[in-house]
Amino acid sequence: MFQSIHFNSKGRATTNASKPQVLEKLRQIVGAENVLVEPEKVEPYGADAVKEKFPPEAVVFPESTAQMSEILKLANSEIFPVTARGGGVGYTGGAVPVEGGIVIGTDRMNKIIEISADDLYVICQPGITTFALQQEVEKHGVFFPPDPASYKDSYIGGNIAENAGGMRTPKYGNTKRYVLGLEVVTATGEIIRTGGKTEKNVVGFDLTGLMCGSEGLLGIITEATLKLLPMTEATSTVRASFKSMEAACKVLTKFTPESILPMAMEVIDKYCIEAIEQNYAFGLSKDANAILIVAVDGAKSEVEKNAKRIEQILRENGGFDVLRAKSKEDEDKLWDVRRAISPSLMKFGTLKINEDVVVPRSKVPELVARIEEIGKRHKTFVANFGHAGDGNIHVNFLCDRDNPESIARARECVKETFALSVALGGSISGEHGIGYVKAAYFNMAIDAPTLEIMKNIKKVFDPNGILNPGKMFV
Amino acid sequence: MFQSIHFNSKGRATTNASKPQVLEKLRQIVGAENVLVEPEKVEPYGADAVKEKFPPEAVVFPESTAQMSEILKLANSEIFPVTARGGGVGYTGGAVPVEGGIVIGTDRMNKIIEISADDLYVICQPGITTFALQQEVEKHGVFFPPDPASYKDSYIGGNIAENAGGMRTPKYGNTKRYVLGLEVVTATGEIIRTGGKTEKNVVGFDLTGLMCGSEGLLGIITEATLKLLPMTEATSTVRASFKSMEAACKVLTKFTPESILPMAMEVIDKYCIEAIEQNYAFGLSKDANAILIVAVDGAKSEVEKNAKRIEQILRENGGFDVLRAKSKEDEDKLWDVRRAISPSLMKFGTLKINEDVVVPRSKVPELVARIEEIGKRHKTFVANFGHAGDGNIHVNFLCDRDNPESIARARECVKETFALSVALGGSISGEHGIGYVKAAYFNMAIDAPTLEIMKNIKKVFDPNGILNPGKMFV
Repeated sequence: MFQSIHFNSKGRATTNASKPQVLEKLRQIVGAENVLVEPEKVEPYGADAVKEKFPPEAVVFPESTAQMSEILKLANSEIFPVTARGGGVGYTGGAVPVEGGIVIGTDRMNKIIEISADDLYVICQPGITTFALQQEVEKHGVFFPPDPASYKDSYIGGNIAENAGGMRTPKYGNTKRYVLGLEVVTATGEIIRTGGKTEKNVVGFDLTGLMCGSEGLLGIITEATLKLLPMTEATSTVRASFKSMEAACKVLTKFTPESILPMAMEVIDKYCIEAIEQNYAFGLSKDANAILIVAVDGAKSEVEKNAKRIEQILRENGGFDVLRAKSKEDEDKLWDVRRAISPSLMKFGTLKINEDVVVPRSKVPELVARIEEIGKRHKTFVANFGHAGDGNIHVNFLCDRDNPESIARARECVKETFALSVALGGSISGEHGIGYVKAAYFNMAIDAPTLEIMKNIKKVFDPNGILNPGKMFV
Repeated sequence: MFQSIHFNSKGRATTNASKPQVLEKLRQIVGAENVLVEPEKVEPYGADAVKEKFPPEAVVFPESTAQMSEILKLANSEIFPVTARGGGVGYTGGAVPVEGGIVIGTDRMNKIIEISADDLYVICQPGITTFALQQEVEKHGVFFPPDPASYKDSYIGGNIAENAGGMRTPKYGNTKRYVLGLEVVTATGEIIRTGGKTEKNVVGFDLTGLMCGSEGLLGIITEATLKLLPMTEATSTVRASFKSMEAACKVLTKFTPESILPMAMEVIDKYCIEAIEQNYAFGLSKDANAILIVAVDGAKSEVEKNAKRIEQILRENGGFDVLRAKSKEDEDKLWDVRRAISPSLMKFGTLKINEDVVVPRSKVPELVARIEEIGKRHKTFVANFGHAGDGNIHVNFLCDRDNPESIARARECVKETFALSVALGGSISGEHGIGYVKAAYFNMAIDAPTLEIMKNIKKVFDPNGILNPGKMFV
């Protein structure tokens, strides 16, 4: 727990950030209009997709690296917690000030500084949404592949800090594969520059890699240089139903021998299908105990050839009701089923605990079967779907928000699911990160000597522990 | 300089590693037959491709992580330098014990532990050559893309520690893009595990990224889990001559608007062409002041289509003597010119200083023109070739090994070339790393606050500074 923290009668955290002279200094740095302190104004900055509330003492909106540096110098000398916040749509509380202090909103640092289609990079500030960034670079005929589900709301700074995943990972990899260089302000207010504008660059330790996925514990990203690719000409999607999850997942490995690398391979289990049908009546077959959606991209002729071959492979391996998109509208329709999952599941409980474990993809059938068994044993409804192509499954335990006993049972399921994922050669988070939500489980995935190294690296960047306290390891 | 170091009358370094009780303990750990101390036996382990000699006091060959840990615990308590060595073919002295102590040869740790074509990973020890690794995984129908020029001799452990590049980087990226997880022994003998078997894995700081390119300063890699791709069906190559470097390099950006991402784009300047013709008489046109070689890979039909289009693009943009490979033999022939460069250049001097600066690829013509001017000013023959597609140019200054003044002039050229590369938005090494050779220039590319962070990270992994002293920053 942060050393200078106090809680008032309403449970609100108070640290040195609330000292009048600190607030005055913050106003001097960014301008009074860019510091929020009124309870009703700061409240929205106290939660993310987890929906638990930890209102900050103040929200500060810098517009430059110099201002960011001044804020952090102040926080480091006065000793109060600083939590950086992008779009605020994370699933593990990474942007939430659980130990009080200030939230730094990067909303005003939302500019694109340079797009070079010739050199295949873009330089931008952290506060732009990943969607807006994609739209802008596409105007120049180039492509930024990372596509976390929240990309219309999440900021690129947050996506880098969380090393966000998404659906295209089987072909394109995670966000970190596209980060060439960063400008970062450390906890002491020092401005460091990592990497550069080129893929090849081996000068010193790879601090760029270290910053990706560091969840705001090591520094605040103020500028990013990202790698771009040529635009792909076309995409296509094929969807099939299967009699079992095992049958669906066995297909995942059948494309490699044919030199096909699908962009996305998504799976949906029978409980999700049941939920979807109850809500939307898509007319999915009663025999469908699993659905697999496979998407490819590339040159037009290649995409069509591959999609046809994928259709055949799905049929040859027990797929039925196989549909191949012939147009962009067709493609959208095939994906409707996937998009219907989350709203449909809410029928089965008022609180959905959404995990994102990862295993080598050949272990997905065993993972899902054993999670089903865990749910049954703890009388908790569980439904699985997600990115089967990279082994990253979203496990959803449904419980009753007003029934602590139901929540406790679900939490027990979560713990057993994490242990299972690690035992199967995977880990406890594929793309959501640890934040405060999974901090208690961190040592299930990371052994003691490795944790020790991480804690010491934290001290290098943040000697006083002011950056995002209460997260990752505590 | 390492604190306990002494030099004997022959200039050989002596540290605590030479103490009889230390050598005895090393023999106990790995077996007497796996410790070399005789001067003629240790000498080959004192140099790499740079050819300067720094013989170690002993060479030790562990066969397991446990032995590696014991050796490092000993080195850390007795305080003597430890330099890990793979194939020993680096260009910056990374594997060379410039401050004495022991070399750890990873030669006996050369096993492949698991190849999973289903899950697209391979787990291996560090001492296998990258070529052998590729051959083995290809038997399973899968593909490991990184291809540093030395891949038949360099070990995968060294390639990871140097974040090796190669020709395929424009499409596939560097070695680090394929490292999913590592087992590492730190300087204190602790065994840490970073990452895992899956692309998606966001649990704690990305120590995998940090280890890639850390040049043996943070720990010794004892096991690596590497990402694989499906095999590509085919490759093709097109070669063209141009009237100027500028004309050749302008073509580099013409493929992006057509959604073509070549696997390799190599350029050769007029001095290289002159040298090649003097030696091999390939019959290259007298008007050829630059040659561009473009290679594509992918599905068979796609490759043929793209190669034809590339041929057109080269012609449309001033390319002449355009040759497109119609067979595997054709392809090999087109590459002969590239392979002929290094031996041909030795005509122009007895010592070739080979640098590997990197700039955004659109800056390559300016880089090359200004390096030519630097060479002229310092009366030094310079020839440039390399990976133009990713902006990584091999700059070769030729001088007279026996003429210190000639070498001093070349060194001045190197320094100015580094400053130029940084000024053009690039850096001082694209793929060779820093080692001891470029350590004096490190601060041209890395600013003071960033260097400070790197030095403190070094202390986290290696509090006594025993791992590869005298490298990177000194």
